[in-house]
Amino acid sequence: MAHKPIAVSMGDPAGVGLEIAARAFAAQSVQPGAPRFFLVGDANAAARAARRIGLDLPLRKVGAAAQVADTAPDALPVLHVPLAMEETPGEPDPVNAHAIIESIAVATAAAASGAASAIVTLPIAKAPLYQAGFPFPGHTEFVAHLCEALPYERTRGPVMLLAGEGLRVALATIHISLAEAIDHLSTELLIRTVRVVHEAMRSDFGLAAPRIALAGLNPHAGEGGSLGREELEIINPAAGELRAEGIDVADARPADTLFHAEARAGYDVAIAMYHDQGLIPVKTLDFWGAVNVTLGLPIVRTSPDHGTGFDIAGKGLARPESFIAALQMARDMAARRKG
Amino acid sequence: MAHKPIAVSMGDPAGVGLEIAARAFAAQSVQPGAPRFFLVGDANAAARAARRIGLDLPLRKVGAAAQVADTAPDALPVLHVPLAMEETPGEPDPVNAHAIIESIAVATAAAASGAASAIVTLPIAKAPLYQAGFPFPGHTEFVAHLCEALPYERTRGPVMLLAGEGLRVALATIHISLAEAIDHLSTELLIRTVRVVHEAMRSDFGLAAPRIALAGLNPHAGEGGSLGREELEIINPAAGELRAEGIDVADARPADTLFHAEARAGYDVAIAMYHDQGLIPVKTLDFWGAVNVTLGLPIVRTSPDHGTGFDIAGKGLARPESFIAALQMARDMAARRKG
Repeated sequence: MAHKPIAVSMGDPAGVGLEIAARAFAAQSVQPGAPRFFLVGDANAAARAARRIGLDLPLRKVGAAAQVADTAPDALPVLHVPLAMEETPGEPDPVNAHAIIESIAVATAAAASGAASAIVTLPIAKAPLYQAGFPFPGHTEFVAHLCEALPYERTRGPVMLLAGEGLRVALATIHISLAEAIDHLSTELLIRTVRVVHEAMRSDFGLAAPRIALAGLNPHAGEGGSLGREELEIINPAAGELRAEGIDVADARPADTLFHAEARAGYDVAIAMYHDQGLIPVKTLDFWGAVNVTLGLPIVRTSPDHGTGFDIAGKGLARPESFIAALQMARDMAARRKG
Repeated sequence: MAHKPIAVSMGDPAGVGLEIAARAFAAQSVQPGAPRFFLVGDANAAARAARRIGLDLPLRKVGAAAQVADTAPDALPVLHVPLAMEETPGEPDPVNAHAIIESIAVATAAAASGAASAIVTLPIAKAPLYQAGFPFPGHTEFVAHLCEALPYERTRGPVMLLAGEGLRVALATIHISLAEAIDHLSTELLIRTVRVVHEAMRSDFGLAAPRIALAGLNPHAGEGGSLGREELEIINPAAGELRAEGIDVADARPADTLFHAEARAGYDVAIAMYHDQGLIPVKTLDFWGAVNVTLGLPIVRTSPDHGTGFDIAGKGLARPESFIAALQMARDMAARRKG
């Protein structure tokens, strides 16, 4: 087999993560070219999640990620990380926080060592992890922390990218209030963000000369300063410096006219100034299939672009499209990066 | 004829407005049910705009709006408001600002007197009007000012609504910087905005029990206060008061998951907290056909949801869909309001 398998962290076992992994594995068995993956998490929880939605999920425990390549493809390999307590669908419990965090760390280590080609993280809920003392805003920052000591020759992120049907958007700011996002914007932040995105589009997405579009912060991109000055004072100066580095990026453009079909045809990736500016168009256009990607890390990491779905967990209603798209994107990114 | 014609103000004659009006009139002659309209503006400029794009536009000057109903439908009636200087496509000139403003005022007066059923405003550019001393941010505020002395029994706006294919979004704040929009948000503002929208959905859009969705301001609608407190302190208290009045509105919902097809099926109109939050989904989904509507006025006013298009003026590239949709929406709103 040419490529190493993808390590999948279990996410919150009270959510929909393990059931969509079971669905994806079932779909994979009838689709031979699908990316191979293994689960890092509780094998019994995975079996229970499958059973709840009427699936029989064949599992095979492995002692180390390196053994996955030697297992037959008729079962889902599991690197067992036991839960402290059996999960109840829809009811997250901080007692399982340690196992949830450990599964992310073990998956990341598998990718760092080269035993896995990439990681795909299933959704976590922040509240139970925070209650257990987890100090990171989310996966993006935690995985970046785990990779801090690894060598990396490109501009280091993390930068969050959302990739849906016909649209990629990277975020300059992520999980902070809108008022804080405005305060955090700086020319330096935007230059670093665009450099990470530009290098990742080349190395991981196979675009020789990526075309990057910067969204404005204010209505009509500030309309020459009369509706806000961040475009003139922060965003456009960053664009100027980036163009001087040879990056194909124009000054800030009005965000409302940046995401219709004809506008999207003019760039490869847009840079949103704040969370909803990027996620509104991605989720409006491709609610079920969009993928969350962390750029600028020594390892490849993607995830489905949805949450734990506690309200529908265990009911067989969760759709696996976004997770399957995340696996495919991780596989393709890892293959391009390896070259 | 059951309904009075619609008064159309000429907008900036250096832009695409008059040519799309000519196109719409040409399309109308082959489409008998189309709403009848008349132009308030310079008849010669209209003829020139049509000629530039290869159309022969039959025009008939009228002395007053009340005479329009007596003219044959083979020509576009014009209530003549002369320009100070012949226009140059793509080059707006403040010398024509007075005529542009006058055409809006005359159209509004025609609707106020009952001679017109509604007004549709063609696009203006702000810079040349500001240079000529025009003190209003845009049409919405100017038309509201013109209507101040008219009686009106419902909650008074103006509130800006964007209506595209499958999505209506009203804006709590409009043309101010994003930082100012955050500062301006208040429970009182939201209550007034939602009341205007609720009453307009009933009177002008024919919805007996409108379902209204409030977008959050912050990522994940603040995630319980950890990503911003405006939802808890401003938006949700407004929702509570509005529910007590019998209005069907829930607490703030995450904006990124509010605009995909299944979410849209759950409400009749969304309330965006700031300009781009509302305009991004509308223009992403329906760039060419969306209509701008002013709610909460004694007269019905709509407009195409695009600007003057100076870069393409006179070239025959401007598309009339949004203007035609604006005419149809104005006609339908006026008919429902009249009852």
